[in-house]
Amino acid sequence: MTGADSGRGAILRAARKAFARQPYAAVTLRDIAAEAGISASLIVKHFGSKEGLFDTVADFTGAADALLAVPNAVLGRHLVLTLLRYRREQGSDLLVRVVFAAGSGDERALLRERFRDQVTRRVEHRLAGADTGLRAELIVAHLLGLGAVMAVDQDGLAATADPEWIAERYAPGLQVLIDG
Amino acid sequence: MTGADSGRGAILRAARKAFARQPYAAVTLRDIAAEAGISASLIVKHFGSKEGLFDTVADFTGAADALLAVPNAVLGRHLVLTLLRYRREQGSDLLVRVVFAAGSGDERALLRERFRDQVTRRVEHRLAGADTGLRAELIVAHLLGLGAVMAVDQDGLAATADPEWIAERYAPGLQVLIDG
Repeated sequence: MTGADSGRGAILRAARKAFARQPYAAVTLRDIAAEAGISASLIVKHFGSKEGLFDTVADFTGAADALLAVPNAVLGRHLVLTLLRYRREQGSDLLVRVVFAAGSGDERALLRERFRDQVTRRVEHRLAGADTGLRAELIVAHLLGLGAVMAVDQDGLAATADPEWIAERYAPGLQVLIDG
Repeated sequence: MTGADSGRGAILRAARKAFARQPYAAVTLRDIAAEAGISASLIVKHFGSKEGLFDTVADFTGAADALLAVPNAVLGRHLVLTLLRYRREQGSDLLVRVVFAAGSGDERALLRERFRDQVTRRVEHRLAGADTGLRAELIVAHLLGLGAVMAVDQDGLAATADPEWIAERYAPGLQVLIDG
């Protein structure tokens, strides 16, 4: 990873936190730059503007692509492993930032809408059989719950133990919802 | 419900949100009173002080008592139904406020510690067999995930549909982790 790449990652981590926890108008590039330990001009270089940065933060397409990259027959295990490995490698979560944007007005509502369209609805379209809408929400619940537990107890087993061992315990409940 | 009781509930809902999202020092009784639509003196009457109010917010004993009130053989279904019914009746979640306190310093760390001791550890002590610590975290993940999905999409099926129908889909994955 080059210095420029790691700067981009630090900006995104700081921006995800800021946009999820504060109203859009209250977020400043200066605060994000301070949190990321870089200069505000580097944010402008990478993302153009606050709008550009928000658009990137509110985009779950890449996360959904990675999570849904395998056939349904092996999807439960892949979902769990992808989430856990991303957390361990990047120190952040693919999805859970949407929870911090819950219950608020303004652009945070847009973040939740994008999540529903780009994650929950895409999961739903992968499902066959009955109750696809509910099953999709419950699959997403499994993933947000895993992200939440790792965020709440960063020294806990879910956050630190071997992903394969966790997937063995957690993926079967997910796979049942996928199979329908 | 008397007027005094409903005032207490409104205070608690506002306080849970405030203590989970802001540093302890930044939380004021005046702001909580404004959010709850009551007077600050009514908070003092019910809870004594900011410390007293925080102690009540950071106490998950009642939630754990309600969630764990049945034998393990039927616990999965009971966990899901209790969480869903509380949400529908009270308009708030038994557990998910802990997620909003994630990643912060100060008294919010105490809220997370209490949660671990009063919820996750109590679940763990109910389990027999192998990997009880990990299974307890994953059971809690299921519950936090359900709370998260209802918070993120308040018009979604998880937040609005018949609890029995949801339990039928969601409880089996939980019960597997309980049975071990």
